[in-house]
Amino acid sequence: MRGVIMYGPGDVRVEEREDPQIQEATDAVIKIVAACVCGSDLWPYRGADTPDKQLMGHEYVGVVEQVGDEVKTVSPGDFVVGSFVISDNTCPICDAGYQSRCVNAVFVDGSIGTQAEYARIPFADGTLVKTPGMPDDDLVPSLLAASDVLGTGWFAAVAAEVGPGKTVAVVGDGAVGLLGIMAAKHLGAEKIIAMSRHESRQKLAREFGATDIVEERGKEGVEKIKELTYGLGAHSVIEAVGSQESMMQAIRSTRPGGHVGYVGVSHDVELPGGQLFFGLVHLHGGPAPVRRFLPELIQLIWDRKIDPGKVFDKTLPLDHAAEAYEAMDKREAIKVLLRP
Amino acid sequence: MRGVIMYGPGDVRVEEREDPQIQEATDAVIKIVAACVCGSDLWPYRGADTPDKQLMGHEYVGVVEQVGDEVKTVSPGDFVVGSFVISDNTCPICDAGYQSRCVNAVFVDGSIGTQAEYARIPFADGTLVKTPGMPDDDLVPSLLAASDVLGTGWFAAVAAEVGPGKTVAVVGDGAVGLLGIMAAKHLGAEKIIAMSRHESRQKLAREFGATDIVEERGKEGVEKIKELTYGLGAHSVIEAVGSQESMMQAIRSTRPGGHVGYVGVSHDVELPGGQLFFGLVHLHGGPAPVRRFLPELIQLIWDRKIDPGKVFDKTLPLDHAAEAYEAMDKREAIKVLLRP
Repeated sequence: MRGVIMYGPGDVRVEEREDPQIQEATDAVIKIVAACVCGSDLWPYRGADTPDKQLMGHEYVGVVEQVGDEVKTVSPGDFVVGSFVISDNTCPICDAGYQSRCVNAVFVDGSIGTQAEYARIPFADGTLVKTPGMPDDDLVPSLLAASDVLGTGWFAAVAAEVGPGKTVAVVGDGAVGLLGIMAAKHLGAEKIIAMSRHESRQKLAREFGATDIVEERGKEGVEKIKELTYGLGAHSVIEAVGSQESMMQAIRSTRPGGHVGYVGVSHDVELPGGQLFFGLVHLHGGPAPVRRFLPELIQLIWDRKIDPGKVFDKTLPLDHAAEAYEAMDKREAIKVLLRP
Repeated sequence: MRGVIMYGPGDVRVEEREDPQIQEATDAVIKIVAACVCGSDLWPYRGADTPDKQLMGHEYVGVVEQVGDEVKTVSPGDFVVGSFVISDNTCPICDAGYQSRCVNAVFVDGSIGTQAEYARIPFADGTLVKTPGMPDDDLVPSLLAASDVLGTGWFAAVAAEVGPGKTVAVVGDGAVGLLGIMAAKHLGAEKIIAMSRHESRQKLAREFGATDIVEERGKEGVEKIKELTYGLGAHSVIEAVGSQESMMQAIRSTRPGGHVGYVGVSHDVELPGGQLFFGLVHLHGGPAPVRRFLPELIQLIWDRKIDPGKVFDKTLPLDHAAEAYEAMDKREAIKVLLRP
């Protein structure tokens, strides 16, 4: 089969790889229907912690081809959505809703690589969720979004304790930030402030539920958030970048006692203890336990109540993966869907 | 009147100061019945951010002498307990339970200094809580503890989401850590692990509810906590020191999805973003909103259901304040009560 391998910064190739096979009784092999490039894939693409040779891709929807003897909840022919972290969904950490740190967790990135034609998914019962039936083709992008960016934005909003009557600020206007806005709206936020200086993203932010746009960053950005919140700061802030600047932007924009939900993959971030201490905010985040939210998100998509697939503004065949990375790197596309 | 002034590291003097007067209609002047030295006072005493000349003391119980025209809830003759941060208790931040970051917050330390015979307390209605009557003398230490160390330990336990059936680890065996144990027990924790290597503190820890003691620190300490929690880490961890080592100890001892409640005043702490991110813990802390807990804590003490005054293992007259600082600095005393 064919799949994406990153050889170094900016060097993405589609090559022939071995066909995945069932190895454990709890495995499934799926035929990938759609995959995509994630904002987090851009970190190694741009030279941050770039491995020598890595299988790429951790977002996926597909059709089950084959299952191991112990797999009970999915069968060949089922259309499935999976999380970007393999989980058994039965350990105490999974039970508490933190499947992305399951005691048997495996990151799909690197070890499996779903920018490919097929993938072996360990702990299929604990990782995959089947859709109510074979989806209409126009639902595929939204279902694909659920496997990471939607689930991650949703987790960020839940981690930030978004709820009715609250004011929410969103730092980061990539797919995750934009879908954090969608989640915030769904969870009943009263005011949703998108921090963005890109017109096309501002437009999508408003479409997803943003009530205010703040273009300023740093100290000026914080001042703007304060102006919009009676000088207090937002109740809930979603951080969806992962840089020092964005984390501090989020923390400083939150009122004392408020909540920061952060999901941007942390790069070179050092949080100053004194500012955290006197800020008196709640901080929660990390790799999103997407599996926790998948059943609910799939249903919302199936019922056409949310349309997260809108974050895909470009579709390419898998063989054009290099072009997809480039488009996202240059911010010519918010998110590129790949069709094997 | 006489009161404590710190002139520099290790240089604590009791000197004549001006008698406090009512300045605003919302003020009260109280006669201090008992004050004490706080673990946080040791930071400047040991040379960390030591001011040139600072009024010391932020823990206090006393009897109201005089009130301004607008004060409604306390009257001359009332015995009162106050928080170490002045709060109006009416702003949106106070309403949310974060009185230590009230929009009108004033830290008692430095500006008021309750290691003294009298103190002016601004926003008396929002800061002071009167006891049901004049307390028996043996209740005074416990009521004094409520004004900071008990309230702070309590907040740490609440911030760490301690609850029935949970395993709690406590980093720091000073008064706050010990009273965090008391709070954890009261809140229904199943297993309470005290991290301490001092015999007298271990004894008090057990008395307050600790079920296990871990003497190891650093990596070994984390391993011990893991051993006691099926390899997962504690559900809730209370951090009551404020150093880099103790914060990392707390974060690493917490299971994914678990909660760290940190109240040690942060000194030279830099939290590595990557470890925080992949740790997937909740982090909440800062200066405790003691005022939130005062009514409940005073009642528990009044009903003799808790006895936090046990953390005071030495009592000295105010004039011997220098000796009190020295005893705590050398860890000859857990906490010293000062009687004006």
